[in-house]
Amino acid sequence: MTDDTTGQSAPLADVRTLALYGVGLINGSLGLALRARGFAGRIVGVGRRERTLRAAADRGAIDSYGTGPSAAADADLVVVGTPVDITVDVIAELTQNTRPSTIYSDVGSVKAGIVTECAARLPDARFVGAHPIAGSERAGVEHASADLFDGAKCVVTTGPGADEEAGGVVRRLWETVGSQVITLPADVHDVLLAASSHLPHVVATALTHVVCGKAADGAQAAEFGGGGLRDTTRVALGSSEIWTPIVVANAEPVAALAERMADELLQLAGRLRRGDAGAVDAWLERGRELRAEITDGI
Amino acid sequence: MTDDTTGQSAPLADVRTLALYGVGLINGSLGLALRARGFAGRIVGVGRRERTLRAAADRGAIDSYGTGPSAAADADLVVVGTPVDITVDVIAELTQNTRPSTIYSDVGSVKAGIVTECAARLPDARFVGAHPIAGSERAGVEHASADLFDGAKCVVTTGPGADEEAGGVVRRLWETVGSQVITLPADVHDVLLAASSHLPHVVATALTHVVCGKAADGAQAAEFGGGGLRDTTRVALGSSEIWTPIVVANAEPVAALAERMADELLQLAGRLRRGDAGAVDAWLERGRELRAEITDGI
Repeated sequence: MTDDTTGQSAPLADVRTLALYGVGLINGSLGLALRARGFAGRIVGVGRRERTLRAAADRGAIDSYGTGPSAAADADLVVVGTPVDITVDVIAELTQNTRPSTIYSDVGSVKAGIVTECAARLPDARFVGAHPIAGSERAGVEHASADLFDGAKCVVTTGPGADEEAGGVVRRLWETVGSQVITLPADVHDVLLAASSHLPHVVATALTHVVCGKAADGAQAAEFGGGGLRDTTRVALGSSEIWTPIVVANAEPVAALAERMADELLQLAGRLRRGDAGAVDAWLERGRELRAEITDGI
Repeated sequence: MTDDTTGQSAPLADVRTLALYGVGLINGSLGLALRARGFAGRIVGVGRRERTLRAAADRGAIDSYGTGPSAAADADLVVVGTPVDITVDVIAELTQNTRPSTIYSDVGSVKAGIVTECAARLPDARFVGAHPIAGSERAGVEHASADLFDGAKCVVTTGPGADEEAGGVVRRLWETVGSQVITLPADVHDVLLAASSHLPHVVATALTHVVCGKAADGAQAAEFGGGGLRDTTRVALGSSEIWTPIVVANAEPVAALAERMADELLQLAGRLRRGDAGAVDAWLERGRELRAEITDGI
């Protein structure tokens, strides 16, 4: 994989051909960011929808594209940016055409299932899981941005039997686009992200159902919402095509946290019904303090 | 109250002296907005903290100020901008010095308790409740803005025995600063705002406790939060001095909604534990649709 004629002066010089499978917000931003940072290799888009790939090429996120798996045949590195329930199927298909040395990675928000399934089904594939913690409720390459990953965290998975050379390439990929790379076992990642991302998503959705759902006579209530309602429910706008596979794959940690969240709310309801203003105040004030502690971190 | 020598060409010309009691984010923005819109009367700040009043005067939100109740003696209209649990105490104190014709209003986020208590304790006071639906988790006149109310809704309360003339003055006050004024009975306001504002506040606080609290090993999880966690928990930064009295005064509707929210989360947890991806997907997709419907409205 090392290209002795090119040397190592350009970023990721050992990746002469990068394939991005599924060029939406994340992979589209990755292509734009690599170009902006001087990546000199070829970037090939692969996917099922030609219209999406053409839009990505028009934006400069990819150099060329193909809708068949052979489009990735020359890739040194393939980054799969699909809903997490089809990631391993895509890799299985692509490995029919690529070299044994080709490194595979992904950008999915849940990791343990993919890592485990890939090791079981494709024991010879050089797969390293990754999760850039960046994005938006707005999907699609049209919202891609070259600075999406700048300063953001990116988790790269590791564990027993990890391919260290492949892990190094994937870490350098994300460092190249400005991310702070953190190496974690896949299951540790999933428990952390259940709290920091998947729970907020389902809480925003539950709140939307309660405030805006028909049973609450809520269309009327939502009209009286301000910035608080808008921000607290914003991520509920995220595509269910992306989010259902995430929370289903991470079902146990997300369910446990949803139950803890329900318990917090039921305890508050009890304090309110008892008129225990002191306990309500202590709870709100402690929440304010905890939130203030993370303000600078995220 | 009508000033025949001045005429009605300037906004709110019948209010020659406006007193703002408690000049924080809302009343400070009200003073700045009135000046920006050509209000020609005098604006007097009243409150307990001289430092706050001086800051408000320095910003141009008030013309003069005093820390004793006599500072409001000449007011045609008094707007009380304190935590909602002391609003009626403040009005009771001020009425010792003002004329019988003086109109009182407030800016509190919960209305029925204040309206009822004011009518019971101060039957002769000309009180009209108001709630400008605008603001921020950032309190204080230093964050005040002349355009805070521009295009925002403002609820003005009405009901049996309402003082129509006083109600008209308060409605014109908020129309002058660009608000869309909506007249509602106080208890209807409180049920609507329980859903659109008070529930989002306690949900953001509960989420902060679960994600960032020590029991969840959460300081670590919060480090992996992105824009979703940040926005979903933002309003938890609001001052408990302001929010505890609001949710305690509106305890029954807020408790009932917190229980419905807990039920939504427990149902989701059940679907996740059963692996019912279809039901999870339908729930996320319906939430996305409901949220999309209100995107343009708030």
